[in-house]
Amino acid sequence: MLASRIHNLKESPVRELLKQIGTPGMISFAGGLPSADCFPELDLAGVKPEKLQYGASEGDLELRNKVADLLTERGVSTDPDRVLILSGSQQGIDLVAKLLIESGTKVAVETPTYLAALQVFDLFGANYAPICPSSIEVSGARLVYTNPTFQNPTGHCYSQQQRHELASACDNSGAVLFEDDPYRDLVYDQCSRTPICSYLRHSEWIYQSSFSKSIAPGLRLGYLTASETLFPHLVRLKQAADLHSCRISQAMITQLLSMENHSYREIASYYKDRRDTFDELLSQMFEDIAVWQIPTGGLFFWLQLKPHLSIDTRTILGKSINNGVAFMPGEYFYPKGIKPVSSLRLNFSNACPNQAAIGLSRLADIIRYEGTKPE
Amino acid sequence: MLASRIHNLKESPVRELLKQIGTPGMISFAGGLPSADCFPELDLAGVKPEKLQYGASEGDLELRNKVADLLTERGVSTDPDRVLILSGSQQGIDLVAKLLIESGTKVAVETPTYLAALQVFDLFGANYAPICPSSIEVSGARLVYTNPTFQNPTGHCYSQQQRHELASACDNSGAVLFEDDPYRDLVYDQCSRTPICSYLRHSEWIYQSSFSKSIAPGLRLGYLTASETLFPHLVRLKQAADLHSCRISQAMITQLLSMENHSYREIASYYKDRRDTFDELLSQMFEDIAVWQIPTGGLFFWLQLKPHLSIDTRTILGKSINNGVAFMPGEYFYPKGIKPVSSLRLNFSNACPNQAAIGLSRLADIIRYEGTKPE
Repeated sequence: MLASRIHNLKESPVRELLKQIGTPGMISFAGGLPSADCFPELDLAGVKPEKLQYGASEGDLELRNKVADLLTERGVSTDPDRVLILSGSQQGIDLVAKLLIESGTKVAVETPTYLAALQVFDLFGANYAPICPSSIEVSGARLVYTNPTFQNPTGHCYSQQQRHELASACDNSGAVLFEDDPYRDLVYDQCSRTPICSYLRHSEWIYQSSFSKSIAPGLRLGYLTASETLFPHLVRLKQAADLHSCRISQAMITQLLSMENHSYREIASYYKDRRDTFDELLSQMFEDIAVWQIPTGGLFFWLQLKPHLSIDTRTILGKSINNGVAFMPGEYFYPKGIKPVSSLRLNFSNACPNQAAIGLSRLADIIRYEGTKPE
Repeated sequence: MLASRIHNLKESPVRELLKQIGTPGMISFAGGLPSADCFPELDLAGVKPEKLQYGASEGDLELRNKVADLLTERGVSTDPDRVLILSGSQQGIDLVAKLLIESGTKVAVETPTYLAALQVFDLFGANYAPICPSSIEVSGARLVYTNPTFQNPTGHCYSQQQRHELASACDNSGAVLFEDDPYRDLVYDQCSRTPICSYLRHSEWIYQSSFSKSIAPGLRLGYLTASETLFPHLVRLKQAADLHSCRISQAMITQLLSMENHSYREIASYYKDRRDTFDELLSQMFEDIAVWQIPTGGLFFWLQLKPHLSIDTRTILGKSINNGVAFMPGEYFYPKGIKPVSSLRLNFSNACPNQAAIGLSRLADIIRYEGTKPE
């Protein structure tokens, strides 16, 4: 007999999709994969043999020092003793859910929002309320989960004013702010990126980010900091979850952060070119069928289909994959109880421009055909 | 407002202890640290750059192939598609608890048992029943958690008959068997090590082990396999917990498992010498105050104090640490609701023989003094 929470645990569609992406010749707009062209060279020079021993649950101090510096630069008030190294930011979601969510807990989320956060919140029994960046409303929510900078899936970035508004809403309602910020280093245009938690006056908060997009996901490292009331619980939950994170990864990332030549700007410049090319392709092929905004950072375009095409894009995924093109139906990113919009999330960083042109052309044809054929 | 489960989450005494162990000059019998003398050399030769990308939640296929071979050799019926790579075996405990334990679930455990398993089971609301290797009783338990081979903390190893008895008890009661087997490669004398799950006829089961003791804990890798009914849920829970484990670690361990010269026997021979020396020291210094058995494997001696010394050893830990000697009070390893025995867990692998002699002498003196002084 399984624990009742397991009935809330759905197979992730991303996961099933990722299996298909491996098929030779598949053009994929589906994953959130950073480009391997931007990965660093592996180097063990800075990895001392002692890193093979058990380590601290909080993470190794050298790395926590570096992370505290990064956070302070961003305006987040913390210190190395209030930094927790995570096995990727997905782990932070698990720990925060354990800390704050039980059956019936109301969580305010963006609609749409990050799919794998919903998966964890569902597991622990969450119900949902929407937070709209324009008219922020967090009534009744114990927790506000936000991905304010180059959101997955929409690419949306909160303005300075929206950041202040959400901070005030948390302060006024007493909800805990959980700010998830993994994409912030992939920035292509001028925009506000100041963490919302830095504007809070008295509400409790957790802020987390990741090295998966800015360095490499295979190393599986992220980090969080939190208000003093919450932090000690999160350390204990981390210890119970996996004792501590891989120390080889920690040492490698410490080393990379110390090197002058690890430049986020070069990486961002690479992605910016891909984004601009992708936008041109979309303008050629999707203008009659979808609307989108150019994302100022991150890895995704978010397309909403025009009203004359009333397709649930989940229904065309199989056909698209059979035609060698993978994408993420936007409908998957809506929490239970919220009606999804007909939409697609398209990753622009993985396919090279030639492949992107072929893939987008095929995908637009499928949407046009399926959206206009008689029932 | 925190989730109610957080009230069950206690600070781990091991964790607090580990902080003290770092003090210069401290002689530590406290941790379960494998000896750094046995760690492999780090080598990136087999780590391809593609390992920096996101990977499969189950783990990389090359490593799953190796693990499936290891498991088959041990008599556990599985295949690479039913192997899940874990971020250390602590993670397996978290995943299994999520799958099977909710408020009030009865879990049968050895008394004493692994502290950090109790920490996780407590978090999810478990109650406990004892399983005694001699008269196995699993009545009313949904889950049976066992560490049958060189148990932490007692070092006990189930006989062949005890293994059959526990398997039968699970089959008869319908309880799920969760077999935790991280110490099995540290074997010093002839004894039965066949996994209990291999004797089951129809009960569901999870079997897990780790590379922390036989290779190196800093790489943070373990693995599990489970009956077909449970395995797919565990993969989803793994995905929700951290997407997948560090791929650099996975590649390094795959490489080490492929090398002819990575011999568990050499490592075991090193530990066996330490164990024998430690037993001699105990015979000289503890014969009047404690009883113990020589462990046939693993990293620990388990000492029960003689009846004339009625000490809760938690009360002498501070004094011992002030005298430069760290140990683990055995009382910590008992689940709530079970009266603990006056006992100590002593790790024999960390301190060199000279230091061990000094530390044990001091510790025996403290016990003799505290155990016989008038109230």
